Amino acid sequence: MHSIEWQGAHLSLLDQRKLPHQSDWIQLKTHTEVAQAITDMVVRGAPAIAIAGAYGLALAIQNGEDRIEASKDLFEARPTAVNLQWALERLALVSDKDVLAEAKRIHQEDLMLNQNIGRHGAALLNGGILTICNTGALATSGHGTALGMIRSAHQNGQDIHVYILETRPYLQGARLTAYECMEEGIPCTLITDGMAGALLKTGRVQAAVAGCDRVAANGDTANKIGTYQLAQLCHIHDVPFYIAMPTTTLDRECPSGSEIPIEERSPLEVRSVQGTPIAPNNIPVWNPSFDVTPAHLISGWVTEFGIWQLPFPAEAHIGQKD
Amino acid sequence: MHSIEWQGAHLSLLDQRKLPHQSDWIQLKTHTEVAQAITDMVVRGAPAIAIAGAYGLALAIQNGEDRIEASKDLFEARPTAVNLQWALERLALVSDKDVLAEAKRIHQEDLMLNQNIGRHGAALLNGGILTICNTGALATSGHGTALGMIRSAHQNGQDIHVYILETRPYLQGARLTAYECMEEGIPCTLITDGMAGALLKTGRVQAAVAGCDRVAANGDTANKIGTYQLAQLCHIHDVPFYIAMPTTTLDRECPSGSEIPIEERSPLEVRSVQGTPIAPNNIPVWNPSFDVTPAHLISGWVTEFGIWQLPFPAEAHIGQKD
Repeated sequence: MHSIEWQGAHLSLLDQRKLPHQSDWIQLKTHTEVAQAITDMVVRGAPAIAIAGAYGLALAIQNGEDRIEASKDLFEARPTAVNLQWALERLALVSDKDVLAEAKRIHQEDLMLNQNIGRHGAALLNGGILTICNTGALATSGHGTALGMIRSAHQNGQDIHVYILETRPYLQGARLTAYECMEEGIPCTLITDGMAGALLKTGRVQAAVAGCDRVAANGDTANKIGTYQLAQLCHIHDVPFYIAMPTTTLDRECPSGSEIPIEERSPLEVRSVQGTPIAPNNIPVWNPSFDVTPAHLISGWVTEFGIWQLPFPAEAHIGQKD
Repeated sequence: MHSIEWQGAHLSLLDQRKLPHQSDWIQLKTHTEVAQAITDMVVRGAPAIAIAGAYGLALAIQNGEDRIEASKDLFEARPTAVNLQWALERLALVSDKDVLAEAKRIHQEDLMLNQNIGRHGAALLNGGILTICNTGALATSGHGTALGMIRSAHQNGQDIHVYILETRPYLQGARLTAYECMEEGIPCTLITDGMAGALLKTGRVQAAVAGCDRVAANGDTANKIGTYQLAQLCHIHDVPFYIAMPTTTLDRECPSGSEIPIEERSPLEVRSVQGTPIAPNNIPVWNPSFDVTPAHLISGWVTEFGIWQLPFPAEAHIGQKD
């Protein structure tokens, strides 16, 4: 399962807004189309938007656009996830003729990285696993990060059951994680976001796993809105709470969670569901797309190098073979 | 604002499934129609279903049905809220010719009771108030219980701002509480259920208020799914969490929360929103309609007699003028 394809001279994205009931692929020929697709959440998930952004820069070069301007347009498409910034900075050091090859390398590396996260993380899982948002094949190059851990555990034949938070307002859990689990035959149950506490109280959950959009140097972790309260509820119920973190999502320049920019999105996302209005048309709304979970609520960060605890290993560690 | 009218010889209910975008009144002429309307959530909210159930019994008598069978049919319409049982037990001691008058008395008393809860509870409120589900005029005879406290505070001119949890799966917050607040000009902001923790962390909330469907003798409180985690999150953030409890919702026969029957409803409520599918069609779902909040997480129970703490006053206290 995947959502991003480079088609020789243009980028093809699976329109994730329409899943699970429609599978439409969209063709993109300019970097501005890619930036818009990122903003509009045709493609979402921190690793996936980094890959899409990298191909976006390749399109800009192919179209003879100004590289710096194009990088800026892509960078501004969504502010919270650091992976997009990381990919664009990596490409900034690459000559025009090599940008496409480097974008493809970023794409391929992400898959290996996910498989390593999956392998290390699967060892932590057994029984009931609660997860939020979508961190699967659709959010990455394939396989996934937090859902990659679950996918690996399932492939290993481990006895697991996934509880999926639907993850309003955008329903990435109900639409995307549910779809991936059903397609792969991973045993699962869908619940609403208000049921997490009641479920944890039943004792049916042995671990919770989430992805991340940016991790500060002190371990504070920005992820989908609802992650903070999930971490608090796990803490109260003595259930370990893990973050799947490709090291590309670690922002060593950012000292703590309070420095992470949090994107606020349109009130329409809260006032409606998949285009159906559910609330008074003009009601005021608060719609932060992310929240920050303090490091002390996190039991471990599952990276491609293994399970990390604080303080995080120094820069030199990265690149080391695991 | 109200949702229940006795029309001389039949019952008229505002169809709450269609609010806020449609205001349809449904006419009911038999007790089986009333029981079905309660099961289907045409009418919802513990006090409102008690009133509707009482009129349902009046319809059964008017139609020459067997009283005991009719009471049983109505009692079984929804299992968790104790108020329906309380109303039917109260009517069990009333002769056929007086049942309608007694149903009207239950209806009128509920309004007075709400106004007393509102008056006592308003004194606890100031600044930001977080609430779940709908506990307003639509859930009762009028005014409301937890939302009645807020309504009274607003009528007193207190400086308050209501944060409304949308309350999936049935969206009583987004559809009904949002509607009531907008209609009355009460300052408000709608959020999704996953945003409660992040909002509490901002310091913008000074108190949380919820209703109840059944309170056990030890103070454990059954209410809409999501209430338990809201109470836990308030506790962590040092925000007082109050339950608005008409004493008709106190079940002194029930020793603790573990004895309260919890209704599980159709998976379709989670797999779709207002008829729009949002998840794979056949995904397994857990859909408990209520959860139980342990007494130690509750800062006080706001009754028609004033703010109660544990141990609850003895039976003799009830009926006493406040």
